Amino acid sequence: MRPTATPSAVADTHVAPHAFAVEIAYDGEPFSGFARQPGRDTVQGRLEAALATVLRRDVVTTGAGRTDAGVHALGQVVSFDADGEEPPPAVLRRSLQALTGRHVVIRDVRMARAGFSARFDALAREYRYRIVDGKVPPLFLARFAWHVPTALDVTRMCEAASVLVGEHDFRSFTSAQSAQGKNTVRRIDALEIVSEEHLGETCVRIRVVGNAFLHSMVRVVVGSLVEIGAGRRKASWLGEVLAARDRAAAGPTAPAHGLTFHAVSYPDEVWL
Amino acid sequence: MRPTATPSAVADTHVAPHAFAVEIAYDGEPFSGFARQPGRDTVQGRLEAALATVLRRDVVTTGAGRTDAGVHALGQVVSFDADGEEPPPAVLRRSLQALTGRHVVIRDVRMARAGFSARFDALAREYRYRIVDGKVPPLFLARFAWHVPTALDVTRMCEAASVLVGEHDFRSFTSAQSAQGKNTVRRIDALEIVSEEHLGETCVRIRVVGNAFLHSMVRVVVGSLVEIGAGRRKASWLGEVLAARDRAAAGPTAPAHGLTFHAVSYPDEVWL
Repeated sequence: MRPTATPSAVADTHVAPHAFAVEIAYDGEPFSGFARQPGRDTVQGRLEAALATVLRRDVVTTGAGRTDAGVHALGQVVSFDADGEEPPPAVLRRSLQALTGRHVVIRDVRMARAGFSARFDALAREYRYRIVDGKVPPLFLARFAWHVPTALDVTRMCEAASVLVGEHDFRSFTSAQSAQGKNTVRRIDALEIVSEEHLGETCVRIRVVGNAFLHSMVRVVVGSLVEIGAGRRKASWLGEVLAARDRAAAGPTAPAHGLTFHAVSYPDEVWL
Repeated sequence: MRPTATPSAVADTHVAPHAFAVEIAYDGEPFSGFARQPGRDTVQGRLEAALATVLRRDVVTTGAGRTDAGVHALGQVVSFDADGEEPPPAVLRRSLQALTGRHVVIRDVRMARAGFSARFDALAREYRYRIVDGKVPPLFLARFAWHVPTALDVTRMCEAASVLVGEHDFRSFTSAQSAQGKNTVRRIDALEIVSEEHLGETCVRIRVVGNAFLHSMVRVVVGSLVEIGAGRRKASWLGEVLAARDRAAAGPTAPAHGLTFHAVSYPDEVWL
């Protein structure tokens, strides 16, 4: 039971004393995406159910990014307002971990200043996309990388990618439906493509950092870069795609399971 | 159907013209280990069934190492004798890959000289064991790493490990049953412990290279090193365990799913 000694100040003014930021990792495969949906198993739905059990009240959370079905996360951040009755962060982390199942890992719980929003206070978001190229399919990386059966030319992909860095209208890289009537200008701060080894298997890893992303934007960028890496398009083609402001000009949408929402950054002053 | 023009020379002398070496990776989780067993789904059983389908004859294979149920492999090597009717290695690789399912990846098929045995011609075998230590459980590495909820002291573990390098009687590091009446002297060429990052998660990776290993030997070595890394035993304890020549002196057997049979090396002259 909650103590009832001094509830009036909080209850009358509805001002949360501070907020919580929960950093979570998840395997996207079993979920119908991040965002809560009635009757579906979603990451946010599962986290809110765990919070309701631990805190014995309804909790509405805000995520830094709404990942699609099948997309993984390493450092997704989810915020909610405190009511001052919560256990210490380390205890809350353990209690939530016990309830969210093995496909969601509660990496950290931190206290943030009142009004903190994981979504609106984010300075930058980082996504990573992994591709295993060549004839031999991945084994350990099968769940976390797209298998492209052609050898990719990473140098050509890097050469092409530079045109996307900076502030641009990325209308070509999201569905026409998502773009309708919306501002599609976004800023990409870094787009880096390297060959990396994980668990003994080699992959092409595409790292994208930006302020915010349109729906499917990273996956359409990756699908377009693969057209160039596989030799089906010239490196200069990506500039034409960007200029077209038309989804039909870009390459296919890369599959969800190769994508990981890697990290979000916030200004230091949000933390208590 | 096989051509029947010149079968007599091969059939009469029973001398295989050469051998094949198949390099395979597998996820150990769904299998009852590597070695064929009637009525069980094993890696060797599945590979031999695929070979029988592709080559239309019974094929008996030899693996470089018999991994236990749950143990993974990146570079297991399996050999069998050719009869001269096989397709080229690249075609054989693709045909086998189409039949073995997603938990077994056929990485390479090579031709070796007549009489080649993946087991008896091996110069050295390398195993890797991965541990995620600390309170936060692994997500992407959950299937491939042991979660030890205590922070491990890698420096202490390295200090302790050096006593095992070289030729020793490793009787303490295998079950009494496995050791009974057997030569338990083996040679460890390298035992290296480092902190590594895979898929954004940090792990302690133990690399062991040796000529051959006793049953469960790597897992008992790892289980003993964790006793030291977690501070439950002193670094000098490992020398006492080695000297005892008694399984009861060592630490627990680390779980199978953290272990990967990483690679096998052969003399250059075995390859055609």
